[in-house]
Amino acid sequence: MKRKNALLALSVACALFPLHNALAAPSQSLEQRVSELEAQLAQTKQEVQDNKEQSDTLQSIADGFQFFGYARSGLNIDQDGHGAGGGLNNIGPQMSIGSNVGAFFGRLGLEDDTYVDTNLAHSSMADNGTRSYYRVMFSEGEESENAWHDANVNIRQVYVELSDIAAFQDSEAFRGSTLWAGRRHDRENFNIEFIDSDVIYLAGTGGGIYDVKMADNWTSNFSLVANDYSDLPEGTRTPENDDMEAYTLTWNNHFGPLQVMLNGIVSKDNDNRSTTEDIADTGEHIFINYNGTSFYGLSDGWTKTGMMYGHGLGAEVKNLGQDSNLTSDASSVRFFTNGVTRLSDNWRIGPSLLTEYSKDRYAEGDEYKWAVVNVRLAQEFNPNFEIAYETTYQYLDLDNGSDSVNGSVGKLTVAPTFKMSNAGGFFERPQIRFAVTYVNWSSDFKDSYLINGIDQGMGENKETVFAIQMETWF
Amino acid sequence: MKRKNALLALSVACALFPLHNALAAPSQSLEQRVSELEAQLAQTKQEVQDNKEQSDTLQSIADGFQFFGYARSGLNIDQDGHGAGGGLNNIGPQMSIGSNVGAFFGRLGLEDDTYVDTNLAHSSMADNGTRSYYRVMFSEGEESENAWHDANVNIRQVYVELSDIAAFQDSEAFRGSTLWAGRRHDRENFNIEFIDSDVIYLAGTGGGIYDVKMADNWTSNFSLVANDYSDLPEGTRTPENDDMEAYTLTWNNHFGPLQVMLNGIVSKDNDNRSTTEDIADTGEHIFINYNGTSFYGLSDGWTKTGMMYGHGLGAEVKNLGQDSNLTSDASSVRFFTNGVTRLSDNWRIGPSLLTEYSKDRYAEGDEYKWAVVNVRLAQEFNPNFEIAYETTYQYLDLDNGSDSVNGSVGKLTVAPTFKMSNAGGFFERPQIRFAVTYVNWSSDFKDSYLINGIDQGMGENKETVFAIQMETWF
Amino acid sequence: MKRKNALLALSVACALFPLHNALAAPSQSLEQRVSELEAQLAQTKQEVQDNKEQSDTLQSIADGFQFFGYARSGLNIDQDGHGAGGGLNNIGPQMSIGSNVGAFFGRLGLEDDTYVDTNLAHSSMADNGTRSYYRVMFSEGEESENAWHDANVNIRQVYVELSDIAAFQDSEAFRGSTLWAGRRHDRENFNIEFIDSDVIYLAGTGGGIYDVKMADNWTSNFSLVANDYSDLPEGTRTPENDDMEAYTLTWNNHFGPLQVMLNGIVSKDNDNRSTTEDIADTGEHIFINYNGTSFYGLSDGWTKTGMMYGHGLGAEVKNLGQDSNLTSDASSVRFFTNGVTRLSDNWRIGPSLLTEYSKDRYAEGDEYKWAVVNVRLAQEFNPNFEIAYETTYQYLDLDNGSDSVNGSVGKLTVAPTFKMSNAGGFFERPQIRFAVTYVNWSSDFKDSYLINGIDQGMGENKETVFAIQMETWF
Repeated sequence: MKRKNALLALSVACALFPLHNALAAPSQSLEQRVSELEAQLAQTKQEVQDNKEQSDTLQSIADGFQFFGYARSGLNIDQDGHGAGGGLNNIGPQMSIGSNVGAFFGRLGLEDDTYVDTNLAHSSMADNGTRSYYRVMFSEGEESENAWHDANVNIRQVYVELSDIAAFQDSEAFRGSTLWAGRRHDRENFNIEFIDSDVIYLAGTGGGIYDVKMADNWTSNFSLVANDYSDLPEGTRTPENDDMEAYTLTWNNHFGPLQVMLNGIVSKDNDNRSTTEDIADTGEHIFINYNGTSFYGLSDGWTKTGMMYGHGLGAEVKNLGQDSNLTSDASSVRFFTNGVTRLSDNWRIGPSLLTEYSKDRYAEGDEYKWAVVNVRLAQEFNPNFEIAYETTYQYLDLDNGSDSVNGSVGKLTVAPTFKMSNAGGFFERPQIRFAVTYVNWSSDFKDSYLINGIDQGMGENKETVFAIQMETWF
Repeated sequence: MKRKNALLALSVACALFPLHNALAAPSQSLEQRVSELEAQLAQTKQEVQDNKEQSDTLQSIADGFQFFGYARSGLNIDQDGHGAGGGLNNIGPQMSIGSNVGAFFGRLGLEDDTYVDTNLAHSSMADNGTRSYYRVMFSEGEESENAWHDANVNIRQVYVELSDIAAFQDSEAFRGSTLWAGRRHDRENFNIEFIDSDVIYLAGTGGGIYDVKMADNWTSNFSLVANDYSDLPEGTRTPENDDMEAYTLTWNNHFGPLQVMLNGIVSKDNDNRSTTEDIADTGEHIFINYNGTSFYGLSDGWTKTGMMYGHGLGAEVKNLGQDSNLTSDASSVRFFTNGVTRLSDNWRIGPSLLTEYSKDRYAEGDEYKWAVVNVRLAQEFNPNFEIAYETTYQYLDLDNGSDSVNGSVGKLTVAPTFKMSNAGGFFERPQIRFAVTYVNWSSDFKDSYLINGIDQGMGENKETVFAIQMETWF
Repeated sequence: MKRKNALLALSVACALFPLHNALAAPSQSLEQRVSELEAQLAQTKQEVQDNKEQSDTLQSIADGFQFFGYARSGLNIDQDGHGAGGGLNNIGPQMSIGSNVGAFFGRLGLEDDTYVDTNLAHSSMADNGTRSYYRVMFSEGEESENAWHDANVNIRQVYVELSDIAAFQDSEAFRGSTLWAGRRHDRENFNIEFIDSDVIYLAGTGGGIYDVKMADNWTSNFSLVANDYSDLPEGTRTPENDDMEAYTLTWNNHFGPLQVMLNGIVSKDNDNRSTTEDIADTGEHIFINYNGTSFYGLSDGWTKTGMMYGHGLGAEVKNLGQDSNLTSDASSVRFFTNGVTRLSDNWRIGPSLLTEYSKDRYAEGDEYKWAVVNVRLAQEFNPNFEIAYETTYQYLDLDNGSDSVNGSVGKLTVAPTFKMSNAGGFFERPQIRFAVTYVNWSSDFKDSYLINGIDQGMGENKETVFAIQMETWF
């Protein structure tokens, strides 16, 4: 009986000095304690269940709402102590004499505007599993430095997507497809971040379907997207054609890393737009892109490389169906490549090349040739600080049919940059940057030069620009 | 002692092969295991409590914020291959020659605009139980198909409500009442969804109280709402009357399913608006509505049926206090009925009737008579797909005092529609629709015809319109 | 063995009549029950852990998003039965003949506009502890009473802050600092709520650092903020100076309750703005503020008391760097004090005094002297209802260089107010107010009077204004 007594003594001791459970009174038997535990656990399990239900409700609320966006805002001061936002030589990635035909520029240190995209999204799921996604995007872009400025907020995107459609689950082709309609930027648009130029920018109002499975390793998207064209000139304008629009029909294909996009554009009566030029009312466009999963096979990283060709209304090869002034003989071919990699532990590089040849674009006989080479470098000092460098060289040989100019534009930027970590490389945001930029261009580019009726003259050359800027996306 | 030994052996066995609890070491006695359980349960209970507190905090954050909205966005192409949004014959539910006096039209397949309401709401509760609700609504409506278009976002509603007011809890009449002030659409506005026409639209800036209990089965709302009127013409305009406004005083009563709304409108000096007509500076308005809980007693569903009469500034019977050009003799009477029901397992029907007689409206002797019959049908094929059909017939007999026209407008729409489920019937959203519509009108409606100084001529008749559209609310 | 038998009997009894745990079948031994408990607890602990993880995810989503704002919306009717929003005598806290030089007015009962700030914020934290905060603020201010009015929404603030910067953690000075860039209202702006006038309003686009520790009990903020100036007149306008901006460099110091802010302003070529006056292109500004933690040492409450002096472009002492028309000799000195306290259990008082002397401001020899005394009182009747009273007396002695006027403006307002509780005193929101106000001014102020080229004449005096208004912030 000694063991038993010892056990009882220990029990009493445990009961007298309860380590955690104040309810275990000295006089409780083990049996009582077990019963008490059973009771308490049952209650706790119920509470856990209640918590779970509350959390699931909160989860569905959280899943149903999303806030995300993009913003940049900053300040440019030129060597004369003025803002760098006005005038002929309007500083920015679209400052070049050839910007109007797509020759964008390295953006680092040269953005004087405040541009904001604010997205709110709502998701839901029906009992049958069908999902919906709604997104509205408020945008504003203004060069003004003032807190209160001219109102310019508009809703740049508002669309609905239906996916996991119950009625499509038996269809091999449509099971994974997403239907959409509304005003939007196409899901597959992408840009060369460093020069703030979309590679392809399909946007407007319409509808379509994503991710139709055509075969193993082949999916297609189909869509019809409208854009407004400006009114026809007096004389050819009638009640019937007074809402001029262009319709872009897209067939966009993915074969693994390869993308082949075919576009047809039509704008009835657009050939009445000019009395002097043979303006197009249809267009064709093809775009091929290869998504590389290394940096040109040389190192870790990625690349995007491709080309596009357009004819007639398709000769504005980036902004699909958004240029009403192209001639019916217009043709453009553009090539691009872009990638990022690490050079060493604390250096990153992101080169870009964009070049286009465009002919009979806005007038018979015009001819626009240009190439942009842009290199972004970043030297990381610690997780919160790096210095970014950017150099752009742009060669332009432009002939608008009456006048021709050729020459080059170049820039160099040094930008001490604060950020949260090194995690995102070139795409880590937010960033707060200070920058100094030197830009120069051929003297031939100083004077007035018209492309598509818009003066592209760059004014006095040799600019030094000081900047403070934040940029974020999330 | 055998039993005891057996028990010990079992204990040891259990301890050696712990099923779930890795902490129950072989040498643990039952006593030790119970103590361990007690300790762990106490800790678990604390964690459950902590989770609960975190969840409650999250719950109050979730309760305090709401995002909800409405949007439609789409594309209309007419038989000439152009947009259907411009010109005299501006396609849409307000395309009729009598739209200006309220003769709206079946909307299905005819909306060429992108219209968005984005609501953000904040709720809170004081320790004394008083609740507040704040709502701001950003709206934009644009016919443009372009992603970037003219900025047109404005804040259409922003108001505060106070409810469950602690100091009112002893008052039988005010206990359940809600005080409000700000810019808003009245809580009790409702529409005939199918023709995109409010039945009653009280909106503007002011304040009021909802749900005052007058007697058993009788509640009333009271409010004062202001709307801006345009400036008086030169000559009668003075520093004293240069901020012309109309004030609408509302007494809105509910007796079970019956609603009786009385409105008085005053706009001082508005009788100076015209030198040729005797313009009103006051108005009276009455609105009676019956909310039926079946489809005209014939089947499941609901109806809303009623009429309204207005005189002077009240003769614009829908948009209360928002028309400054009504004569002091103006009088209008409008009747409406609207309902929905199922015809069979997979067919639904939603008929509407709206008709008005208006006299001496904008000029002595003018006389506007019109009636709209609209029938929406839907044939459900599966939870994600239905075909909607809509037919409108509108008869108009209009006399603006100088010219009179009469005739009719008709349309037929077929709209294959994708959606999430059948749960909401006609009001299930989002929907993605394709539609083809044929609209025609009397040749007498082609030419210019002025109502209230605005040309209502419909232009060339016989239109075929193809559409893609999304619509959602949530 | 008796005890043991008794124990077994009790066990059986407990097992036969389980209080809470239905799973404890009669035949279970204590051992089995303990094992079962261990198994269930292990599972419950896992569920608690899962709940915790879900809650933490939800917490981080909740922490990452914030919605907050300000709004007022209401209705003013004057004694003539018209809106009080138009004309010379534009009712509001800026109605005085000296508003243009800062002489604001008690706001209670006199605000006829709807003004809304809607903020959305996003926070995040990197693994290294660095935090980011992003804020975008949509604002609209409109006098219109209409739900649909002229679009005027713009983005008044959009900026990024980086704080808890990992790389700064070793630095005594910068450890607690926050870097920022973008468009914003400075964090340290504050106002005299009762007269809707900022004491100091530094706003625009730029960047800076907050909370640099200079020494014990001394922190500093540094920033560079730009504002747009309007274009120079024809003749002095060149491509080089066509983006006129002013740059404000700020060094803002806190020594405990004492704040000393130094500002330098520069706007190159701004001295070319006028051919008749010697306009400044630089400015200096100093601002001293003392945050009192009692009501002038007399009772509980708080005060803010200080003065500011500015010269050249700094002579607009409130809106830093936002007035381009100041002469190079301009100088202004302003004094303010403001505080709140309780007079008794149910009476609160909030007096304000603001006075300025400004010389050679817009023209050589001009001289503007004014003082505003404003007293807000509130009498609390219950947690949901109080009556607020406000009286303003303003003395003005103005000489624009060609004409001089002097006299006074006075007002008295009584405002029955509904609210949620007494918790926030004068700053409890939301409020729904009714108000009646009497305003009068010297007959000399009726006529046209130009300050900085803007007519400040107040028109016919003696106004009685009736108001309904909501105001909220959260």
